[in-house]
Amino acid sequence: MSNSTNEKNIEKKITSRKENYSQWYLDIIDAAELAEYGPVKGCMVIKPYGYAIWENTQKILDKKFKETGVQNAYFPMFIPERLLKKEEDHVEGFAPEVAVVTHAGGKKLEEPLVVRPTSETIMYDVFSKWIRSYRDLPLLINQWANVVRWEMRPRLFLRTVEFLWQEGHTVHETEAEADGRARQMLEIYKDFAENTVAIPTITGVKSETEKFAGAKCTYTVEAMMQDGKSLQFATSHNLGQNFSKAFDINFLDKNGVKQDGWQTSWGLSTRTIGGLIMTHSDDKGLVLPPNIAPIQVIITTIAASEKDRETVVNKAEEINKILKDKNIRSQTDTRDLRPGEKYYEWEKKGVPIRIEIGPKDIANNSLIFVRRDTGEKIKSPINNVAEEIEKLLNIIQSSLYNKALEYRKTKTKTVDSWDDFVKAIEEGNFVLAHWCGEKDVEAQIKEETGATIRCIPFDSKLEKGKCVKTGKPSKQRVLFARSY
Amino acid sequence: MSNSTNEKNIEKKITSRKENYSQWYLDIIDAAELAEYGPVKGCMVIKPYGYAIWENTQKILDKKFKETGVQNAYFPMFIPERLLKKEEDHVEGFAPEVAVVTHAGGKKLEEPLVVRPTSETIMYDVFSKWIRSYRDLPLLINQWANVVRWEMRPRLFLRTVEFLWQEGHTVHETEAEADGRARQMLEIYKDFAENTVAIPTITGVKSETEKFAGAKCTYTVEAMMQDGKSLQFATSHNLGQNFSKAFDINFLDKNGVKQDGWQTSWGLSTRTIGGLIMTHSDDKGLVLPPNIAPIQVIITTIAASEKDRETVVNKAEEINKILKDKNIRSQTDTRDLRPGEKYYEWEKKGVPIRIEIGPKDIANNSLIFVRRDTGEKIKSPINNVAEEIEKLLNIIQSSLYNKALEYRKTKTKTVDSWDDFVKAIEEGNFVLAHWCGEKDVEAQIKEETGATIRCIPFDSKLEKGKCVKTGKPSKQRVLFARSY
Repeated sequence: MSNSTNEKNIEKKITSRKENYSQWYLDIIDAAELAEYGPVKGCMVIKPYGYAIWENTQKILDKKFKETGVQNAYFPMFIPERLLKKEEDHVEGFAPEVAVVTHAGGKKLEEPLVVRPTSETIMYDVFSKWIRSYRDLPLLINQWANVVRWEMRPRLFLRTVEFLWQEGHTVHETEAEADGRARQMLEIYKDFAENTVAIPTITGVKSETEKFAGAKCTYTVEAMMQDGKSLQFATSHNLGQNFSKAFDINFLDKNGVKQDGWQTSWGLSTRTIGGLIMTHSDDKGLVLPPNIAPIQVIITTIAASEKDRETVVNKAEEINKILKDKNIRSQTDTRDLRPGEKYYEWEKKGVPIRIEIGPKDIANNSLIFVRRDTGEKIKSPINNVAEEIEKLLNIIQSSLYNKALEYRKTKTKTVDSWDDFVKAIEEGNFVLAHWCGEKDVEAQIKEETGATIRCIPFDSKLEKGKCVKTGKPSKQRVLFARSY
Repeated sequence: MSNSTNEKNIEKKITSRKENYSQWYLDIIDAAELAEYGPVKGCMVIKPYGYAIWENTQKILDKKFKETGVQNAYFPMFIPERLLKKEEDHVEGFAPEVAVVTHAGGKKLEEPLVVRPTSETIMYDVFSKWIRSYRDLPLLINQWANVVRWEMRPRLFLRTVEFLWQEGHTVHETEAEADGRARQMLEIYKDFAENTVAIPTITGVKSETEKFAGAKCTYTVEAMMQDGKSLQFATSHNLGQNFSKAFDINFLDKNGVKQDGWQTSWGLSTRTIGGLIMTHSDDKGLVLPPNIAPIQVIITTIAASEKDRETVVNKAEEINKILKDKNIRSQTDTRDLRPGEKYYEWEKKGVPIRIEIGPKDIANNSLIFVRRDTGEKIKSPINNVAEEIEKLLNIIQSSLYNKALEYRKTKTKTVDSWDDFVKAIEEGNFVLAHWCGEKDVEAQIKEETGATIRCIPFDSKLEKGKCVKTGKPSKQRVLFARSY
């Protein structure tokens, strides 16, 4: 599935970020063969290379979840309408965007079935039967699944009608334990963002307006994209007892007294791939941090003559084996194409390191490593290849993180006047400003500037200040930005 | 999630196979906490212990698929009605059992969307755009997904409205290559059935009546359950060019001539867990072969006094660590319950080996191993525990396979008269008999006895014979049985 597709792609130019940021994003996805729209509007086909990124995501997160005692399970995709309606805020939040099955098996259904937009309602109906006593707690369940939300303005990975995600759902004896779990899972997401996909993040609490429909409070991981907008990378909700009261999730405590459970839910979806693309990529194509890259090293052969070809290909395979034995995700490209054509393809696909190997390199007992992120060429002795590659992968990983962090720092403004606020938002910054805490002021700011409160950052210090919009007193700065 | 649930379960008796086989099957699922029905009729909740079996299935098969060059991808769940209708036999086969989304985002949809019952139509619509030249072939795609078929008579794992599966879809240059791929994937399923889940199988070709809707021919893996019925464990289809012609999947061959692709599809679902349950379990509960068991060894502590407790628990944890270091899936049960209560729980859950450890065992520097499959108790020195357990796990694995194979042999009859045929089917056997090859005879046999042709086994030798029903000439025996 490559040559003719490549030839097609070679003709396509990637739009520069400066020229048209939105088109650049779509061009990257196309050039790297990550995804495309399917025959139904807003539904996405995740192509093998894009799906491999999701598989790595699953593998890493699943392990971390299980280390904290979480177990996977699977719940039905169809939710009876009456269940969705049980928690008031929840149904209000999701009803407008659900897809509904009305006919099945050739008949009209007695009760329409909603395709899950998220699984609180169906899971909690079942949880209520599983939980009887404090000895059944904590209940720690996660599900990897597809969900559907009818999006009017779809964008590949960022907003699609159907998407893939994991959703964790837990029940606890005490409020403190539930809140601790919600924060613990947020830390796992933050760690994944920063250490696996090299995306610096800001964590904090959502405002009442921005929190999850039905939650008591929502914790969030926010990240800055290259256009200065924020992307909500993952969220973790302290649900309080809102759902447990609606769904009768109660238990007998150690004293034999009936109590309502304390709950959390937390999720991360394929939209993180959109965030990954927009954090690191450049005008030449995708740039992948080594820890998430499906292919970390591509070994490309250069052979002028047919005579050289065999020697070079054998050496490439030999190096490939050495790297694979060290658990480095490497692959060879020994196709008989012009080197430039091969380089171009792997550049677009964002492979962190390209090794070039030709007859001269073999004669010199050395290799050329080319960094995708900087374009830097490094001559390296052939002997130590695995160690040198391992080192370089680590360097690239932290270099991408630091670059993104530096970028965010230069694009984060602390402002105290409305004029400065408007200007800073207009210029695509993260803005730290005082806010009086009133919902309608938040709504007015959104209407006038397009900026929303991304979160009240955990590290936002208490300081006296005046609301940037109303001048009313405020006790800490919150993070404003436009967002995806 | 255990004690109070256990107490509840302890009160429930598992119906014996003799008494009521169908109820026994459901009781096993309940007692082992594998799955239950959700709030929508026929939709299944796969509980953590059941899902862990599916996760092991995924891990093992996914690796095998990838070793043959297959890549994972993800395609939309919603299929426009017009696509489903493109291949005539296919729509006829699936139309009666689809679920249809007619409303979404608060509006009636212009075109109804079918929830995938299988993904040939949506994938092949996309494949037609991906494939241009012979250089794009073979295309080898697999998807892990949920699918929906509106079943009127649901049974947990065996037949549910929504189920989980993998579906592989490939496109090739030649018919021979496609057929080779279909057979190669069947071999992977057979290998998984026999070597991982210890289920002996019979592989062969489906009759025209029984083949997949739209296929040129269907290969199948069939297995005998303890009631003598056959379970279709997995199938692999040579699709010929039926779909490629309907969906315009064509390519320019090496001579620049346009050709239609040759295709295959192949799938295995959560129904294999039903097969696993019905092959090995007994009247005490689930019996799991070690290679698929989420927990291979449960280490249960016995302590009469509080004084002993700490010593015994420490020793149990020490042994647990030794086993885990050898990649044995072991777990401790150090709960302060009566030993019998603990044994009973793990017996119902089918854990292959239980280690009993008490103060006396520690004093004697020995342990008691209890085999779930035979009940046999083995005294073993504490020193060599990992090696001894590894050996015993292997013994149990092959012992379960051999037992099932022996059972099938005693319940497989070769018959030549209609009376013998009817009797053998009535008694719950696999029956090898001659058949004239006529569809209406096949239908009549089904109507009169409930038996269908499970397959024309690959190892069925050519021999002259007379159809067991019509007396017309036949050239080989085929396999008849009642089935799930």
